[in-house]
Amino acid sequence: MTIGFAIFGCGRIGRMHADVVAQNPHARVVWTYDVHQPSAEAVAQKHGAKAAPTVDEALGDPEVRAVLIASSTDTHVDLLTRSVKAGKAVLCEKPIDLDIARVDACWAEIGPLEPVIQLGFNRRFDPSFRAVRQGIRQGEIGKVELVVITSRDPGPPPAAYIQVSGGLFRDMMIHDFDLARFLLGEEITQVSAMASNLVDPEIGRLGDIDTAMVTMKARSGALVHINNSRRAVYGYDQRIEAFGEKGMLRCDNKRATTILRYGSETTAARDPLLNFFIERYADAYRQEIDAFIDCVQNGSTPSVGFADGRQALVLANAAYESLHTGRAVEVG
Amino acid sequence: MTIGFAIFGCGRIGRMHADVVAQNPHARVVWTYDVHQPSAEAVAQKHGAKAAPTVDEALGDPEVRAVLIASSTDTHVDLLTRSVKAGKAVLCEKPIDLDIARVDACWAEIGPLEPVIQLGFNRRFDPSFRAVRQGIRQGEIGKVELVVITSRDPGPPPAAYIQVSGGLFRDMMIHDFDLARFLLGEEITQVSAMASNLVDPEIGRLGDIDTAMVTMKARSGALVHINNSRRAVYGYDQRIEAFGEKGMLRCDNKRATTILRYGSETTAARDPLLNFFIERYADAYRQEIDAFIDCVQNGSTPSVGFADGRQALVLANAAYESLHTGRAVEVG
Amino acid sequence: MTIGFAIFGCGRIGRMHADVVAQNPHARVVWTYDVHQPSAEAVAQKHGAKAAPTVDEALGDPEVRAVLIASSTDTHVDLLTRSVKAGKAVLCEKPIDLDIARVDACWAEIGPLEPVIQLGFNRRFDPSFRAVRQGIRQGEIGKVELVVITSRDPGPPPAAYIQVSGGLFRDMMIHDFDLARFLLGEEITQVSAMASNLVDPEIGRLGDIDTAMVTMKARSGALVHINNSRRAVYGYDQRIEAFGEKGMLRCDNKRATTILRYGSETTAARDPLLNFFIERYADAYRQEIDAFIDCVQNGSTPSVGFADGRQALVLANAAYESLHTGRAVEVG
Amino acid sequence: MTIGFAIFGCGRIGRMHADVVAQNPHARVVWTYDVHQPSAEAVAQKHGAKAAPTVDEALGDPEVRAVLIASSTDTHVDLLTRSVKAGKAVLCEKPIDLDIARVDACWAEIGPLEPVIQLGFNRRFDPSFRAVRQGIRQGEIGKVELVVITSRDPGPPPAAYIQVSGGLFRDMMIHDFDLARFLLGEEITQVSAMASNLVDPEIGRLGDIDTAMVTMKARSGALVHINNSRRAVYGYDQRIEAFGEKGMLRCDNKRATTILRYGSETTAARDPLLNFFIERYADAYRQEIDAFIDCVQNGSTPSVGFADGRQALVLANAAYESLHTGRAVEVG
Repeated sequence: MTIGFAIFGCGRIGRMHADVVAQNPHARVVWTYDVHQPSAEAVAQKHGAKAAPTVDEALGDPEVRAVLIASSTDTHVDLLTRSVKAGKAVLCEKPIDLDIARVDACWAEIGPLEPVIQLGFNRRFDPSFRAVRQGIRQGEIGKVELVVITSRDPGPPPAAYIQVSGGLFRDMMIHDFDLARFLLGEEITQVSAMASNLVDPEIGRLGDIDTAMVTMKARSGALVHINNSRRAVYGYDQRIEAFGEKGMLRCDNKRATTILRYGSETTAARDPLLNFFIERYADAYRQEIDAFIDCVQNGSTPSVGFADGRQALVLANAAYESLHTGRAVEVG
Repeated sequence: MTIGFAIFGCGRIGRMHADVVAQNPHARVVWTYDVHQPSAEAVAQKHGAKAAPTVDEALGDPEVRAVLIASSTDTHVDLLTRSVKAGKAVLCEKPIDLDIARVDACWAEIGPLEPVIQLGFNRRFDPSFRAVRQGIRQGEIGKVELVVITSRDPGPPPAAYIQVSGGLFRDMMIHDFDLARFLLGEEITQVSAMASNLVDPEIGRLGDIDTAMVTMKARSGALVHINNSRRAVYGYDQRIEAFGEKGMLRCDNKRATTILRYGSETTAARDPLLNFFIERYADAYRQEIDAFIDCVQNGSTPSVGFADGRQALVLANAAYESLHTGRAVEVG
Repeated sequence: MTIGFAIFGCGRIGRMHADVVAQNPHARVVWTYDVHQPSAEAVAQKHGAKAAPTVDEALGDPEVRAVLIASSTDTHVDLLTRSVKAGKAVLCEKPIDLDIARVDACWAEIGPLEPVIQLGFNRRFDPSFRAVRQGIRQGEIGKVELVVITSRDPGPPPAAYIQVSGGLFRDMMIHDFDLARFLLGEEITQVSAMASNLVDPEIGRLGDIDTAMVTMKARSGALVHINNSRRAVYGYDQRIEAFGEKGMLRCDNKRATTILRYGSETTAARDPLLNFFIERYADAYRQEIDAFIDCVQNGSTPSVGFADGRQALVLANAAYESLHTGRAVEVG
Repeated sequence: MTIGFAIFGCGRIGRMHADVVAQNPHARVVWTYDVHQPSAEAVAQKHGAKAAPTVDEALGDPEVRAVLIASSTDTHVDLLTRSVKAGKAVLCEKPIDLDIARVDACWAEIGPLEPVIQLGFNRRFDPSFRAVRQGIRQGEIGKVELVVITSRDPGPPPAAYIQVSGGLFRDMMIHDFDLARFLLGEEITQVSAMASNLVDPEIGRLGDIDTAMVTMKARSGALVHINNSRRAVYGYDQRIEAFGEKGMLRCDNKRATTILRYGSETTAARDPLLNFFIERYADAYRQEIDAFIDCVQNGSTPSVGFADGRQALVLANAAYESLHTGRAVEVG
């Protein structure tokens, strides 16, 4: 049976998700909602859906079995709670919330309902990252000892975004915190952070950082390094490296073409990297939604859920504590 | 206005094309036809189209503005002729026909109608190959002097296919002949071929070859090398290299992931190549159909037409003549 | 005038250095010395030199203008002091000593003599690393923001070596501490370390670590990450990456051949990395000695001296302090 | 016992060979000779050897056990014959002669003496090419089906050189003809050539070509492609590719560093290729001389001898015949 979706939030990411839902043969967009009504209408029209005047109208429709939350972060907890209470499966963009207390309160309320929730950690669905994780699982590199995650945006967001973002660790590195847990398959016990404001002084004035390095230790003793920058002029730089007793698995970036240019000054020069997440993770977003639809269809549990969203936030908070105290911070 | 398509031939390639047409916002599949009726029905059902009992029924529908011919080669000329006479724009899979006399007779009949015909040389639409062509056009490597085209299938087709294929030069290398013309932007004047039957003795028994090298000279004196094999165990190997007075442009193959594996025996080992044309040229097929739809919408002339299809066949025939006579054959 | 060398320490590294000295057209080996006399004699014989019964005999020879110290670490300060007092130029293997107090006492004694001392940080002379540094200097990547140094040995040393090594930070990562300063061209102000014993339990029993990550901040706010492992089964892994406002410069590893292997399971598989420092840094060792000989000939100051050796030890000590206190440690 | 060498021809290649001989612990340069006496003296002085006033004086010295012929091509047969008659082992630069009749006459004279002759096909000793050959021998790619050899000089030689060179096929592609035989381990039976004058009109005026493609068939049916250009602005381009039933082996070029440059326009851009043969084949030249010295010491037969030099010339001549007749030419 086709799974009806309500899309909450019709900005860039919401639109992209709606397209992916529409392409899945087992799902269709039924309702769209956005505080900015015309955005909701545009997406609705594209997919033969209806723009809901209120969230409740969409949630009240029994045809809607799944909700996709891609609205602004401060609305996540409310929409998630209401959707779960309405009996819907939910695919919620990260982060759940910037405030761990609100996250815990949310779970206290919805946890007992045993909800089907998938967290929008898209990178877990990237085919290359999955191949690394699979290689690790299959013992290809033995015990994992070092993980290095490189994650750099092509350019800094506007100040208005920075102000409500929760800061680099909660907004940007949160993906990498999750990726570390995904790759290791075990919990982090220690977090240490160092950071600077080098890219844009405005970011510093807003109390945030734009250049950061975090080191973490996992239960097994494996060490993880993450580095972030808000500006890589050569494109969106997304690499991982997992090193262990029997070898190493790495992923390189993606480019628009495979061209190699040879001239008198340089050779084998390649294209810039794909510019940003919509292009870079196009396959991942598709896999993410397909996996979610699969779970809804089969009643199975999403591979990445509420607890993963919470734990990534715990690590981000620990990174801030480390940054402010100069100490390595123990985590649960 | 949405452009209605009739899909003639609903085998693997026809199905793939139908999917691409369906994804284009300006087009939709209206009719499907296949000598094997259930195939036509399956594709029709998937896209909300109708399976036509006869070609004429589809051609008679004024909603159909475009025809996509993906049936067996021996039906191309007939379907192309009828479609053009019915006033339709046509995207016809290569080759037009295996017999140059039939090709010329076809054109004598339809040429005066000034038809809109695009030939299915999908590789011209591959983003990487296009980037090479664009680099050449923009003078990045100056005058082109050497072109090397590597084109190897992952495995040989069944004997039944070989028998009706027209032989390696007309069936397989025909893409490379066209690619050479596309890259050079000028005509070939000389063709020399050497070939062997090394992959499958059955292919030899059928009078065909499975391993071949062709050298060609263009009007400017630029030289072109093409090599083909019917079996590359590491996947579908599709590379081009254009070398000129100011540098070189090359394209590498595509893989499912960007993973690099390091162990005690080898390092930086990558995935096998994408297995075959459906996967390897997925982007190209999309660009090809989008470009065709664009032409139909705007009344512009396709960038690759009937004459290109004919010229590729001329080169394939010249390659056979060279193979049989041991001489370089003059063309054009 | 040919520069006469005394080689102190004729183990593996001493022998290698002697070979390089012998190949330089402006230098020759005059004396060799080793506590194990036959080692000294073997090297002497190979290069037409004399094996000195005592250090003083070599230092007393006016033909000796330069001393190369490649003996065990605990002898460095003594030999360095005596050589300087004898008026010789000295190329001293790292580290100067494991004890910063002894290092400072040494300098208090010899500093006033304005000695010509080059520290054996061979990696500064690697052509690829130099090209990165040169690119940075020339502004190719603008202001440097992130530096990532990967440095992993092919396999752990024997326990006996570990016991006298001073520990991973002083024995192994000391090269990377120096490399960070070399690349940045500025001083480090903060050091934070995390480490584990994952490779060999024996190393842990000896109180040492074998897997480590260090994060550092430079005066400008630039961040540096170093990771070390005592065992990389795919070979000696030595990479650097410098990232800045205008781009990135990276160095890949070296292999014995450029072969790429394609099979049905993997493609483009390369050789293991060169196994260890003698092979990997062969060019660097040659450049290092040639640069030193150049300094002795021209009376110029070596580009890497006593103070650099001291500063690398300061950073190693700070790393230990961070490891033990769990705090980021401020350095001078 | 140390093997004494006479070096005949002290130009750039002779000097390079002399350096390599001098570095081998089992050999030393005893005599040098050059029609330009000061060249001979310079090399002699560098290596503590004597400059011979005549060839005979060097050949008369019993200390000379080996002769290295690096003089101009037209002197090879004479020097080779005299050296063999004087009982010396000979390492002779390619080609033996430009005239196959002279080559055969030479052999008629010296063959009965069962001489120790190694032909200077340096590429056979390149570690990467050897690794490909070894992989083939060990069955890594099964039966070889396609070989592609790319060989492009960084820039054209002066007209004066072109005039006496014997033409591109005998002067430049002769290395590739030999390499094809080396890789295949079997004989070529058919040669077909196509060529142009695109790089330098002066070369055309001298009746030569500067851009060429040759296709060959081996006894087994395996096909070989070679392409040559006298000008690659990105450096000396030397690549091979061997393709077979079980996979493929390729070699990439060598560069001065492993640096990868990332900017806003291009990424992973590498250095130009090593400029020319002295740098590119430095390792190969060393291995070549070491292998020769080994043969002289042990009385074993060089792996590449007179017959190989002759056969490469046969293939070059066949290429010319094909170029002039437009036919594939059968050989031996």
